[in-house]
Amino acid sequence: MSDIDADPAVVALGGGHGLYATLTAVRRLTRRITAVVTVADDGGSSGRLRAELGMLPPGDLRMALAALSDDADGVWTTTVQHRFGGTGALAGHSVGNLILAGLTDVLGDPVAALDEVGRLLRITGRVLPMSPIPLDIEAEVSGLESDPRIGRCVRGQVAVATTPGKVRRVRLIPSDPPASPEATSAIDDADVVVLGPGSWFTSVIPHVLVPQLHAALVRTRARKVLVLNLAAEPGETAGFSAERHLHVLSQHAPDFTVDDVLVDSASVPEGRQREHVARAAEQLRARVTFCDVAEPGTDRHHPGKLAAALDQLIRSPRSQLAGLRFERRHGASDVHSVADERSGSVGKERVSWR
Amino acid sequence: MSDIDADPAVVALGGGHGLYATLTAVRRLTRRITAVVTVADDGGSSGRLRAELGMLPPGDLRMALAALSDDADGVWTTTVQHRFGGTGALAGHSVGNLILAGLTDVLGDPVAALDEVGRLLRITGRVLPMSPIPLDIEAEVSGLESDPRIGRCVRGQVAVATTPGKVRRVRLIPSDPPASPEATSAIDDADVVVLGPGSWFTSVIPHVLVPQLHAALVRTRARKVLVLNLAAEPGETAGFSAERHLHVLSQHAPDFTVDDVLVDSASVPEGRQREHVARAAEQLRARVTFCDVAEPGTDRHHPGKLAAALDQLIRSPRSQLAGLRFERRHGASDVHSVADERSGSVGKERVSWR
Repeated sequence: MSDIDADPAVVALGGGHGLYATLTAVRRLTRRITAVVTVADDGGSSGRLRAELGMLPPGDLRMALAALSDDADGVWTTTVQHRFGGTGALAGHSVGNLILAGLTDVLGDPVAALDEVGRLLRITGRVLPMSPIPLDIEAEVSGLESDPRIGRCVRGQVAVATTPGKVRRVRLIPSDPPASPEATSAIDDADVVVLGPGSWFTSVIPHVLVPQLHAALVRTRARKVLVLNLAAEPGETAGFSAERHLHVLSQHAPDFTVDDVLVDSASVPEGRQREHVARAAEQLRARVTFCDVAEPGTDRHHPGKLAAALDQLIRSPRSQLAGLRFERRHGASDVHSVADERSGSVGKERVSWR
Repeated sequence: MSDIDADPAVVALGGGHGLYATLTAVRRLTRRITAVVTVADDGGSSGRLRAELGMLPPGDLRMALAALSDDADGVWTTTVQHRFGGTGALAGHSVGNLILAGLTDVLGDPVAALDEVGRLLRITGRVLPMSPIPLDIEAEVSGLESDPRIGRCVRGQVAVATTPGKVRRVRLIPSDPPASPEATSAIDDADVVVLGPGSWFTSVIPHVLVPQLHAALVRTRARKVLVLNLAAEPGETAGFSAERHLHVLSQHAPDFTVDDVLVDSASVPEGRQREHVARAAEQLRARVTFCDVAEPGTDRHHPGKLAAALDQLIRSPRSQLAGLRFERRHGASDVHSVADERSGSVGKERVSWR
C-alpha cells in the first residue's frame, strides 16, 4: 500500500451531499470507485417511497449515481435528478427514485437495480447500499427537557438531523443489520477508503455501526482517510468543534481507526485549536492534515481541491500508527510515543493544489 | 407503390391493445415502422399523469414503445411496463409512464422524450403522438334516457368507452387540434398505412378527426389498410356488426378512403353478411379481404397471422378504386361499376399464412 498505483481502488462511504462531494472529487483520481451509501433516510421522496413500497430509500443512492455519471449534463442524468413539481401525488418525487423503485420491483435486488441505472448513466465505478435492508436511526438527545441531564430518544433520520437538542449517541434499528456483501468485499479489496464528509450522525457514523462493515473497515489493508466537515451543521452537530466530530466517531466505534484525518485549514485556526484536533485524532490513531479544500464562500468541499488533497495524501508515506495499533491490539507495545511524534506535523499544510 | 420493397415504410395508427397487436405484427415485416398513437386517454395512470402534469397521456405511447422493443423480455422493457402495486400514491402507475413524464419535463418535447425511451428499449421504428397536445373525446350517445331518441353528450375516453348507451358520433376537444408534424410527414412518406384494430370510437376514429392527419391520410400515395376488430366491444361498440364499424368510420370522415379492409374470416360468416361488409366498404372505396387472423379462443389478433395477412395483402395488386376515387374527386367518371366488380372478390379468402 505504500505504492498507490495509477488507478487506485477507492471506496467512499457516506450519504447525501457530503458523499456527492467526495465522489465528484475521487472520480478525478481513479475510475475504480465504489460508493457505499447510507440507507436510513426517512424524509422527502425517499421516505415516501420507502414507506409506500418497503424499498431502500433511494435518494442518496441516486445522488451517488449522478455524481459518478460520465454524462453529467446528459438527458438521462438530468432526468434521473429531475423532481416533479406541482402539488399532486408525484410532487417532489425525483424521477431517478421512481426508476430505482421500478427496477428494484422487477429485479428483486436493489444492487442489480443500481447497476442498471449505473449503466444508463454511464457511471464510473459502482454504487452500493451500506445494507440491503432499509434502516432507521435512533438518537439519544439531551437538551429537549428543561433539565439538560434528561435524555430523550429521537427516531428517524430527519428528526435526528433537525433536532434542536444535542445528539449524544445514535444507533441503528435493527441494531445488527447485514452489510451489503458487495460493500464489504469492496472494502476488503480497496487501496483507499474515504469516510465523510457528511451529516455526522446520520450519514457518516452509521457506517461504523453496521457490524460487518465495521469489521471490514477494521480489517482492510486500505489506507483510510476521514474527511471532516467544513462546519457544524444546524441540528445534529450544532456547535460541534472539529475535535468533537472525532470524539463522537471514536465513541461509537472504539476499535475503528483511520490513517488520516483531512481537515479544511480555514475551519480550524492555527495554534491550540489544531492541537485539540490532533489530540482527538489520536483516539483514531490518525495523522491530521490541514488543507484548503473549501469551495470559497460556502460550507462545501471544492471537488478539485479535495481531489488534489486526497491524491497527495494517499501518495504520501503512510503513518505507522495504524500498523502499531494493529500490533497493539495483538499484544504488542503501546503507541503513545509515535502519536506524540506525529503531532509535530499538525498545523503544517502539506498538500498543495491548483 | 405496386412494388413494395423489402423493407416498406409502414405507418400504424391506433391506440391501446389494438395498436400493440398491429405493431407486433408489422415489426415482422419491416424495420421501418412509425406508430401514430391516440392521445385522448383520461383513465388510469395516464389520466392521473395528464391531470397532474398536463402532459400527453403516456399509456398508449408506452405500450407502442414496448411493442416495438427489440428486447421485449429485457430489464428495461419489463420495467417500463411494470406497474407499482400497493395502495399508495404510486399504485397503478406504470414506471414507463413516469419515465416519459420526467423526460417530457426535462426535454420540453414529448416526441424527444419518446425517442429517448425508444433508444433505451432499442425499438424498431418510432412512436409518435397523433397530436402534440392532450385531447378529449366527446360522444353523442343515445339510449341513456327512457326515450331512445334523446341523445346525451358523454365526455372523456373512459366514459365513452364504457357507456351503456349507443355511441352515435364522437368529436375531439379541441375540435381542430394540430397533428404531430412528424406523424404527417411519416404518412406522406409511407408505403403502407394501417389503421386499426382498436377501440373504434376512442382509438381508431380519432385519427381521422385531426384535420392535418386526415389531410395526410387523404393525400398519401401509401397503400391504406383498415384492420377491423374481431368482435364488438362491450361499451362503445356493443352490438356493432362489422359493416357498422365501416359505416361509422365513413360518417366521421366522408373523404377518407382505404385500399383494403382486412376482416377476420371467423368474425363474419360467409354469405349475406360478407356482402353487407363489402357494401359498407364501398363507402371507403375499399376491397375487403377475409382472413383467419385471430388468436384462437380470444378476441385478439394473432401477430403471426396478422403479419402474414398484411404481407400478402400489401404485395397483392392494388385495387384501382382509390385511383378512380382520386380521379372522381378531380372531376373524372364515377366508380360504381368498379365497386360492383370488386364485390365479386368478397367471400374469397385470398391470403394464407403459417
